[in-house]
Amino acid sequence: MAEEGFLTRKFGEGVENYYAGSPLNRLAFLRTNHTYLSTALQHPSTRFILLNNLDPLASTPSTLAFLSYSDISDLIANPYATSEQQLLQTFTSTVDHPVLIFLGIDESAAPEHSIPTPDNKYTGQAYFSLDVTPYPSKSYASTATSLLLTIKSSYPTHEFKTARKDLNLGNEHAAIYASARSLTNWNVTAPYCAGCGQKTMSVNAGAKRACPALDGGVETRKCGSREGVHNINFPRTDPSVIMAVISSDGTKILLGRQKRWPKYWHSTLAGFLEPGESIEEAVRREVWEESGVTVGRVIIHSSQPWPFPASLMIGAIGEAIPGKEDIYLGNDPELEGARWFGFEEVKEALAVTTGGLYDPLPEGYKEGMLRLPPKTAIANQLIRAVVLGEVHLAKI
Amino acid sequence: MAEEGFLTRKFGEGVENYYAGSPLNRLAFLRTNHTYLSTALQHPSTRFILLNNLDPLASTPSTLAFLSYSDISDLIANPYATSEQQLLQTFTSTVDHPVLIFLGIDESAAPEHSIPTPDNKYTGQAYFSLDVTPYPSKSYASTATSLLLTIKSSYPTHEFKTARKDLNLGNEHAAIYASARSLTNWNVTAPYCAGCGQKTMSVNAGAKRACPALDGGVETRKCGSREGVHNINFPRTDPSVIMAVISSDGTKILLGRQKRWPKYWHSTLAGFLEPGESIEEAVRREVWEESGVTVGRVIIHSSQPWPFPASLMIGAIGEAIPGKEDIYLGNDPELEGARWFGFEEVKEALAVTTGGLYDPLPEGYKEGMLRLPPKTAIANQLIRAVVLGEVHLAKI
Ligand SMILES: [Zn+2]
Ligand SMILES: [Zn+2]
Repeated sequence: MAEEGFLTRKFGEGVENYYAGSPLNRLAFLRTNHTYLSTALQHPSTRFILLNNLDPLASTPSTLAFLSYSDISDLIANPYATSEQQLLQTFTSTVDHPVLIFLGIDESAAPEHSIPTPDNKYTGQAYFSLDVTPYPSKSYASTATSLLLTIKSSYPTHEFKTARKDLNLGNEHAAIYASARSLTNWNVTAPYCAGCGQKTMSVNAGAKRACPALDGGVETRKCGSREGVHNINFPRTDPSVIMAVISSDGTKILLGRQKRWPKYWHSTLAGFLEPGESIEEAVRREVWEESGVTVGRVIIHSSQPWPFPASLMIGAIGEAIPGKEDIYLGNDPELEGARWFGFEEVKEALAVTTGGLYDPLPEGYKEGMLRLPPKTAIANQLIRAVVLGEVHLAKI
Repeated sequence: MAEEGFLTRKFGEGVENYYAGSPLNRLAFLRTNHTYLSTALQHPSTRFILLNNLDPLASTPSTLAFLSYSDISDLIANPYATSEQQLLQTFTSTVDHPVLIFLGIDESAAPEHSIPTPDNKYTGQAYFSLDVTPYPSKSYASTATSLLLTIKSSYPTHEFKTARKDLNLGNEHAAIYASARSLTNWNVTAPYCAGCGQKTMSVNAGAKRACPALDGGVETRKCGSREGVHNINFPRTDPSVIMAVISSDGTKILLGRQKRWPKYWHSTLAGFLEPGESIEEAVRREVWEESGVTVGRVIIHSSQPWPFPASLMIGAIGEAIPGKEDIYLGNDPELEGARWFGFEEVKEALAVTTGGLYDPLPEGYKEGMLRLPPKTAIANQLIRAVVLGEVHLAKI
């Protein structure tokens, strides 16, 4: 056993970052069961999250608005009325359908709002998301526009609000929104098959896009995505690494800043993992590319879904190698600056200056003080874990 | 601070799993520098890994074969002779090019084999991979077929060998191959733009596919991938979770088996992370779906690139919740069986029975003994970490 070093951690309840912690059971194995989905869709208690250009309908800045089937059935009728197999047979790429996603069930809901699974083993209130954006090119554009007007008059206080700008959702709603947003964005931005270039069709209750062998009854191109092991038609999630780097003497933390950020604002370094890399290697590569610092030991701390558009942020803590801690920004233009901060300066900033990029300056802020990201960012949790020795972080 | 529990770990050098640990510096920031790439490509010491249907050319089962530019220049000439911008302007989708990837430089190579970067800051021997598969539909098919014949006669002992079947690469070669394989596979299987359905072009030395605005001089469709924040034309890496689950009393580990596996063979549970999930949530969901067991605390142990075709295996250790440890296989047909194994039985298996799925039975194996995956699998490392209390795992 090596001696305890800076990278020794005790694990407690674990860290649950913002956008994680969904209260819903996804029931992934029922995504092709159209009998179940059909019942869930039309149940009067089933809740629908609406997205317009990825902005969710919200009743307050911290609360999603949930509509019911009767509010939105003009736009979607019941897409689960026939089997997935039959829908694939009758696929016609000229007819568009809004993206509808089964998000799962809330098993803590009251019995009167709940529906049982076919095996009667689980029960809960069902949640779906529906993309009501009136894209001008879509065949349902005018129906979507009408629906938006009806909603506006039926629910005058609800508004479509922009994440990271007008929204400050509670944890559970943030997690539900994260899944809805990333899956909707994928369905909308990747409507063609990367394997053969043909239009695909949303299947598995929004969690897959199939490349149909027929379009309007006419055979389409052959496509590798229809057989064997492949990942082409599944939603993508892009792993990225974000890391708090400790100096080799254990007294300083490496933070950087981008040019577009407000004055004095710094955060941990981050970047996308590349094919063929482990998380630990990606941490070392990104830190070296962006700051010139060489990292040795790496541990993985926690993770955060980041639906902008579809990242998985993997939080790590790394330790710089003695003698390889000089900052060099010449490799990569990503950062405007990076430097080592003593723990005391960072502790003070954590206590006073954390906040969103576009938030007003916090009370007690003195010009020149380091500014840090808010608790909803995994960067904040990583910085905290390092400088405060906090590892049993409470849910924010 | 919570008390130390089963999930307390001390971190040492960290775990480096098989397929990680590449000796190459990717120099990602030089991937658009065609002057540098052009020099690197044609240097007589530059090494080329050849792939044929993703099988690498190998000189022995444990060693990749490296060819030089003169061996392969019939097939690719110099694709970096003009700038990426110029290549985008003259893109013609009817002309195919074999996938060529700049893998990086080995900075430990002798000076006579090395080339300096443009800023003279780094130097090393360059590595590329080239897909020489003679796909019948490609315009270069006959040239590739000829090249394969030439190679066979020039290097009669080299062979294209299949990973996980005929290959047993050393760590560094395995890591180099992992990057080459996953990037090549992505370029080959995803040649169309998921955003607009048009043919894309390999750019950034194989690390990106651009959707050109012109094809044969004719303007193509508008495409969202040409502007703003998006992930469409970058290689995908699919995060998946793999986890050793400890019983709530800390004496047993949960292992499962698939029907296609040899008798008595078991491994840790695993599955793909879904959009909007944290790693910790994906661990809990997958374990519950596949085995019915509910997991509480989760820590992330280490990670492994898994280029079949492009996964990132994220290894975790989870702790079952008391009273929620009964096995139920009815949700998901993934597993044929799953059960709790006492640490002693697992320790014995680790000592005697580990090996690849298709390896012959190990010496000392007695009918009925639990069989476990080999050290090259992260599953083995996770099982080891749990039952042996090993956390400072040596590089295998
Ligand atoms: Zn296809
Ligand atoms: Zn495109």
